[in-house]
Amino acid sequence: MTYCLAIRVETGILFASDTRTNAGVDYVTSYRKLHVFRPAEDRIFTLLTAGNLATTRQLLDTIDRDLRRAPNGESLLSCQQVFEAADYLGRISVQIQDQHRKALAQSGVSGDVTLILGGQIRGSAPDLVLIYPQGNYIGTSEETPYLQIGETKYGKPILDRLAKSHLSLEAAARLALVSLDATIRSNVTVGLPFDFALYETDSLGWPLETRIEAQSTYYQNVSRTWQAGFENMFAGLTPFPVGAPR
Amino acid sequence: MTYCLAIRVETGILFASDTRTNAGVDYVTSYRKLHVFRPAEDRIFTLLTAGNLATTRQLLDTIDRDLRRAPNGESLLSCQQVFEAADYLGRISVQIQDQHRKALAQSGVSGDVTLILGGQIRGSAPDLVLIYPQGNYIGTSEETPYLQIGETKYGKPILDRLAKSHLSLEAAARLALVSLDATIRSNVTVGLPFDFALYETDSLGWPLETRIEAQSTYYQNVSRTWQAGFENMFAGLTPFPVGAPR
Repeated sequence: MTYCLAIRVETGILFASDTRTNAGVDYVTSYRKLHVFRPAEDRIFTLLTAGNLATTRQLLDTIDRDLRRAPNGESLLSCQQVFEAADYLGRISVQIQDQHRKALAQSGVSGDVTLILGGQIRGSAPDLVLIYPQGNYIGTSEETPYLQIGETKYGKPILDRLAKSHLSLEAAARLALVSLDATIRSNVTVGLPFDFALYETDSLGWPLETRIEAQSTYYQNVSRTWQAGFENMFAGLTPFPVGAPR
Repeated sequence: MTYCLAIRVETGILFASDTRTNAGVDYVTSYRKLHVFRPAEDRIFTLLTAGNLATTRQLLDTIDRDLRRAPNGESLLSCQQVFEAADYLGRISVQIQDQHRKALAQSGVSGDVTLILGGQIRGSAPDLVLIYPQGNYIGTSEETPYLQIGETKYGKPILDRLAKSHLSLEAAARLALVSLDATIRSNVTVGLPFDFALYETDSLGWPLETRIEAQSTYYQNVSRTWQAGFENMFAGLTPFPVGAPR
């Protein structure tokens, strides 16, 4: 499975993903799910992918092919705003899924992919959207500044508690790590290493990337501190009012 | 929706549930999902229910009818061990679902119910099982001393961190409250009041019951302390190694 998330804060956008891929439980491999495109100096896009690995591969190849064909036809270079890029990716995604739908359905397999696209084009603000397998998309809001795809539920409670627009990019990365850590504890098909990319608003440059490996002392330290913090917090709660009047 | 859980600890079994029921988002009501049966002095059962409300009602009615018919036929009085009661409930459940399956399928509705049954019959140890809609069941283990039904994912990470067999019944109740609190923050179709029942091993008596209402000062205190604890823990983590070498 997969867990990817992005958090939009006032100073930029944080992207994070795991790298675990599985076809059944006996074919587990590691794939990059965080992809950065900077086809020109005036634009930068980061794409997170969850779902069918073959659809994802064909989608990435199609994006590249369309960029090579530019300025002929539609591509990440032809769009004027991030939402147009989302619309373009949504259409490619649906097209690829349609191409394989019949054959996949015969094997009981879904070709669906769900995407998170964030980026900025000079002249407009950064934007962050989630593109559904059906090709339409949603954005973030002031109250819900994050988007998630894949195995989203285990890592959601901590985001609901702590994800706020005023976080720094560094704090957003720290929060994403904690959300990923919660997920891998409850679902073995999400796994390390984790990829992070921090995009600073108006930089229009390559985002700062960090890969956190399983043996990372930083990760192990965070994971241990977090677990110990839970144990302390729990021990400090007022005892439950056993048998109190209903 | 629903979220129910039970934790088996060395000194007994803790049961907890929310009370929110919804048929769509515009018909939300409150129903009890925690049911205690003590048909004789030598046996006690606590049942948690998730799923179709009509199937649940007919299941409860059938349990009562079979108890009134005892000692004729099968009932909670005829079984010698808790697993036999689980098997009996599983069969009733499948039977009721089968009765309504065709009509419900025509409306695109599922009649499924999933149950947690815990209890004790004199002469054997307490037992705790989860009964699937298909009528079969699973138990707990030393490593995973809890069972969940309904909207299980949001409340699972905290159980994976803190649910241990050596917890006291009081601590298990406190942990269940925290798990319920995490769930209602992320899913509005799970809601207060919460019902708790604490069964002490070998008491064979009625479990100690507590209902926690939304306005409960204990709940509000726990919920606030927990949220503040998260904020402190998060603020105390070492900053993320932004742009460190991959």
